Amino acid sequence: MHSWAKDLFPICRSLTGLGVRETLQYIQCLIPELKICSVPSGTQAFDWIVPNEWTIRDAFIDDSAGTKLVDFKKNNLHIVGYSEPVDLWLTLEELKQHLHSLPDQPDAIPYVTSYYSKNWGFCLTHEKLQSLVPGRYHVVIDAELKPGVLNYGELILPGELDQEIFLSTYICHPSMANNELSGPVVTTALSQWLKTLTDRKYTYRIVFIPETIGSIVYLSQNIEYLKEQVIAGFNITCVGDDRCFSYLPSRNGNTLSDLVALHVLKHTDPDFIRYTWLDRGSDERQYCAPGVDLPIASIMRSKYGEYPEYHTSLDDLELVTPTGLQGGYDALRKAIEIIENNVYLKSTVLCEPQLGNRGLYPTLSTKESGRQVRAMMNMLSYCDGQNSLLDIAELIDEPFWGLTTIADQLIENDLLQKLEKKRE
Amino acid sequence: MHSWAKDLFPICRSLTGLGVRETLQYIQCLIPELKICSVPSGTQAFDWIVPNEWTIRDAFIDDSAGTKLVDFKKNNLHIVGYSEPVDLWLTLEELKQHLHSLPDQPDAIPYVTSYYSKNWGFCLTHEKLQSLVPGRYHVVIDAELKPGVLNYGELILPGELDQEIFLSTYICHPSMANNELSGPVVTTALSQWLKTLTDRKYTYRIVFIPETIGSIVYLSQNIEYLKEQVIAGFNITCVGDDRCFSYLPSRNGNTLSDLVALHVLKHTDPDFIRYTWLDRGSDERQYCAPGVDLPIASIMRSKYGEYPEYHTSLDDLELVTPTGLQGGYDALRKAIEIIENNVYLKSTVLCEPQLGNRGLYPTLSTKESGRQVRAMMNMLSYCDGQNSLLDIAELIDEPFWGLTTIADQLIENDLLQKLEKKRE
Amino acid sequence: MHSWAKDLFPICRSLTGLGVRETLQYIQCLIPELKICSVPSGTQAFDWIVPNEWTIRDAFIDDSAGTKLVDFKKNNLHIVGYSEPVDLWLTLEELKQHLHSLPDQPDAIPYVTSYYSKNWGFCLTHEKLQSLVPGRYHVVIDAELKPGVLNYGELILPGELDQEIFLSTYICHPSMANNELSGPVVTTALSQWLKTLTDRKYTYRIVFIPETIGSIVYLSQNIEYLKEQVIAGFNITCVGDDRCFSYLPSRNGNTLSDLVALHVLKHTDPDFIRYTWLDRGSDERQYCAPGVDLPIASIMRSKYGEYPEYHTSLDDLELVTPTGLQGGYDALRKAIEIIENNVYLKSTVLCEPQLGNRGLYPTLSTKESGRQVRAMMNMLSYCDGQNSLLDIAELIDEPFWGLTTIADQLIENDLLQKLEKKRE
Repeated sequence: MHSWAKDLFPICRSLTGLGVRETLQYIQCLIPELKICSVPSGTQAFDWIVPNEWTIRDAFIDDSAGTKLVDFKKNNLHIVGYSEPVDLWLTLEELKQHLHSLPDQPDAIPYVTSYYSKNWGFCLTHEKLQSLVPGRYHVVIDAELKPGVLNYGELILPGELDQEIFLSTYICHPSMANNELSGPVVTTALSQWLKTLTDRKYTYRIVFIPETIGSIVYLSQNIEYLKEQVIAGFNITCVGDDRCFSYLPSRNGNTLSDLVALHVLKHTDPDFIRYTWLDRGSDERQYCAPGVDLPIASIMRSKYGEYPEYHTSLDDLELVTPTGLQGGYDALRKAIEIIENNVYLKSTVLCEPQLGNRGLYPTLSTKESGRQVRAMMNMLSYCDGQNSLLDIAELIDEPFWGLTTIADQLIENDLLQKLEKKRE
Repeated sequence: MHSWAKDLFPICRSLTGLGVRETLQYIQCLIPELKICSVPSGTQAFDWIVPNEWTIRDAFIDDSAGTKLVDFKKNNLHIVGYSEPVDLWLTLEELKQHLHSLPDQPDAIPYVTSYYSKNWGFCLTHEKLQSLVPGRYHVVIDAELKPGVLNYGELILPGELDQEIFLSTYICHPSMANNELSGPVVTTALSQWLKTLTDRKYTYRIVFIPETIGSIVYLSQNIEYLKEQVIAGFNITCVGDDRCFSYLPSRNGNTLSDLVALHVLKHTDPDFIRYTWLDRGSDERQYCAPGVDLPIASIMRSKYGEYPEYHTSLDDLELVTPTGLQGGYDALRKAIEIIENNVYLKSTVLCEPQLGNRGLYPTLSTKESGRQVRAMMNMLSYCDGQNSLLDIAELIDEPFWGLTTIADQLIENDLLQKLEKKRE
Repeated sequence: MHSWAKDLFPICRSLTGLGVRETLQYIQCLIPELKICSVPSGTQAFDWIVPNEWTIRDAFIDDSAGTKLVDFKKNNLHIVGYSEPVDLWLTLEELKQHLHSLPDQPDAIPYVTSYYSKNWGFCLTHEKLQSLVPGRYHVVIDAELKPGVLNYGELILPGELDQEIFLSTYICHPSMANNELSGPVVTTALSQWLKTLTDRKYTYRIVFIPETIGSIVYLSQNIEYLKEQVIAGFNITCVGDDRCFSYLPSRNGNTLSDLVALHVLKHTDPDFIRYTWLDRGSDERQYCAPGVDLPIASIMRSKYGEYPEYHTSLDDLELVTPTGLQGGYDALRKAIEIIENNVYLKSTVLCEPQLGNRGLYPTLSTKESGRQVRAMMNMLSYCDGQNSLLDIAELIDEPFWGLTTIADQLIENDLLQKLEKKRE
């Protein structure tokens, strides 16, 4: 995953445009089934309108001697997203109206956009800003803002059931790694793994979209079907650094996605940070909006807005590591595996069964085998057809993935029966 | 309010009699719509009977030299409420059987009554009691206890709906200020304010009654109608000192009145004291009795029974202050305003609306404007037609009164729709 | 009770056999109505089969000089329960394969059984084990394992209603006192007391069974009737030492038995230990199994598995004391009394009644009388026909047994009405 991230890092993504298309094409090479869709500028999507397409070719600030002081080609964060084209000579004072820097992080280039009001600007380190001397500067932005398309990628992996698991990630951020290349690369890896599952119970709908306008557009085209079929899902973002895990709930916080996310994180990283709906900030704002109400939660590592490198040039591929990405992948995969394998279990005998007869007691009594037997007996004691395996895992405080083998053993021995639905 | 309290302070109120009528007439001058009602002694009210009317004209203790040692005319707490008439010469020992003082508060005259068993007595400071020397004392109580009436005041302010908000306070305490002139004066001020509201949604029923027997009599006459129409209400008592606020719940603690009271106090005085139903002691005992079950809670400042000056001559107009009364008034008014303005809100667009287009983003970005935008977005995210504005205020931890302007703005912009009822 | 325990202590009990029958006959002398039942070996009971009957006559280890080193006749814990007969000469190394001791408790003989896999063995103190020198040993177990019966005792005390309170205890442990002679002797004492009640509301079903197989056999024969009629019950075990009380819930933890157990223990021993269903280990494993779902909780003193003397020769009649047994008896009797006397109460008057008139106010005002009046008023305030007396005791935080006299007084004064069922 880290090498995919390296390949994708230099591309200048935005809401629309070439960078998005290049990114989607790269992912399509990894998952040929990915469909790349386009929606024309000006299309209405609920309260929003698809904006013009933005093309950025070059942008720089020269001093009067013609020396390039700030160069988009060196770092695409230098240009304010959706800047209008300009070619001007300005005094330092005039120029400063259009410069953005972070006095508290003097070596970081900030990430700034102006999608919905016409504007232009440059971002640079505060060190660089302070080195500028009075004089005249030549500012050039070779950009274009005109009707085009908004692109997104959609992958549908059918399962035994029409009910869907929905995964969404965004591909509109330029050269930043945790927020947001980690989401697309982890989602790509999850897609590849899901393709290998030959017996998927659920259908998987996976989208790579620009944030906010992309999810709004996608919802406006699919909302009725999604409301009917989606039983769980995750907004995949900020899953690449090595710091602690975090969780952000769906609006009501009690969907299957929430239960699963909390279960995985509790057993993966007991110190994970639990945010609330009031801390939201990504596409769950749309997916969980009133009237939309999809069951979408977020499993993250360092959450957007909560780590020092957020939305700066410091959010790079040193912050995001192979192990960080792997951890994000593992947690999301576990969450999906739980949803796939979460059945209702019913004991076939009244009272405890005699395990000894059936060789279900370990012959060698070790600490681990004792733990296994306790887990088995505790599990059995809750198999009343009303509790799902996830419910039971919570009740007996064991990780779900520690119980599936036990459940299989008991099913093989005819002591348990699988029910797809809760017993009435 | 404090000057009203000063005017009313010297009047010798009791369950019945002249003092109650003078008090009600004073209030009637301030609110001409107040109806003064009378119920004859001997009237049955549930398990109770309206007692005889008590008239007290004079009461004193003279020493053998004719010096007035204790004089009702100097402080009406000196006489035990409902004392029978006497004119006796007694030894100090005999007299002491009828004297009440507080050894722990030697400079305070206690407040004592004997409404329902025939008796007489005087209350005095412990200092005065200890200064009495052996000898003969002349005790005179010029009182009368005979059939008459029990009086109360009733004010009904009709609203758009027949559903009622019920406010009750009591006018049976002699010269004490927090318990209880604060209740009547704050209730009078609230009545005047409510009269000025031309678009009241609810009907207001406001009663000024003697405690216990008064609420029982009032309930016995109106219970069926009240049970049908009252949706919220407050017992208004002890709302005049400057100390912390306190809350006493209705019996079940989960009525609209309770939710509103808790919301107001949490945002007014985060350190407010939360009492339980087991700490009750005023007319909620009747209003929330089994089978009566009205939704009545109490918002108070220092609660009866819980402050050192309680039921003594020290509960005076230095303890109760203009700012103390204003604070009590403000909290109750806020509570009423919440009930009046608590609508269900439903977003008119799916997904987040585009606020920028509509000028709903502040042009100047300050800390306060950021807070406003967050509150607006958080509020919108809960406007699903299932949450009332009070529910939303609780969910996003903002004071209700901070959200009404935002709600109005969003309604004006057609982004929100008011529903009078929860969406099914 | 302690003297019964002394009589029963030396008997060598096991799942089946003579010791169980002797024990049941001893109890039958104390409660002649006890029915002793037998179920043949080989009988199927759900997933189990009634095992062969085990007869143990003698067992010892001699050294080569014929000196008895370990002698079953001195302590019946020396023999592993259900040992097969043997008569062998072994080396020390061979012998040690069959010896059990506790290195951490060198002066304790452990309790070991091998009910369901053929085996034999001896238990001895670790001190004794370490004193054994290399050489040849003569091992004799004069035992028999052949078809016979499993015995249990059943006592049914009919009440006014067919609904049942179910008490279960076990009589399969050899010479150990807290676990488990305390259960049978306390249950015997409770049975004698219940017989004296001439106006039992509920029917009582009391069983003395071997643990696990006994409860499974009993359930297999009675499950439908029990599921229909049992409204509460307790598994009576470990109720004889002087240490703190403890509670183990039914599977769902919210049955009447649970509420009652928690109420009794809270007011008996506020520091009682609250275990969870995951700590279970006795017959509640069967009674509360999925599909069985009887409302059975446990009120214990030191819980099985949780005290150092557990399952060793140190669990003796010094650990179990007369006061320990009395405490266990008292707690269970209180629990039963609550269930018997738990009625729904409804006030007959609206608003508070006038207690003074009826002499319900104490004439002498003491701290205790004040507490009584407060309890009376608090109780009355919850008598809405929806709350049972137990609910009210919880709401006003008074022990149930402190409220029954008050309730009776109020019923006599026609202020309260008893309802057998919750008012709709």
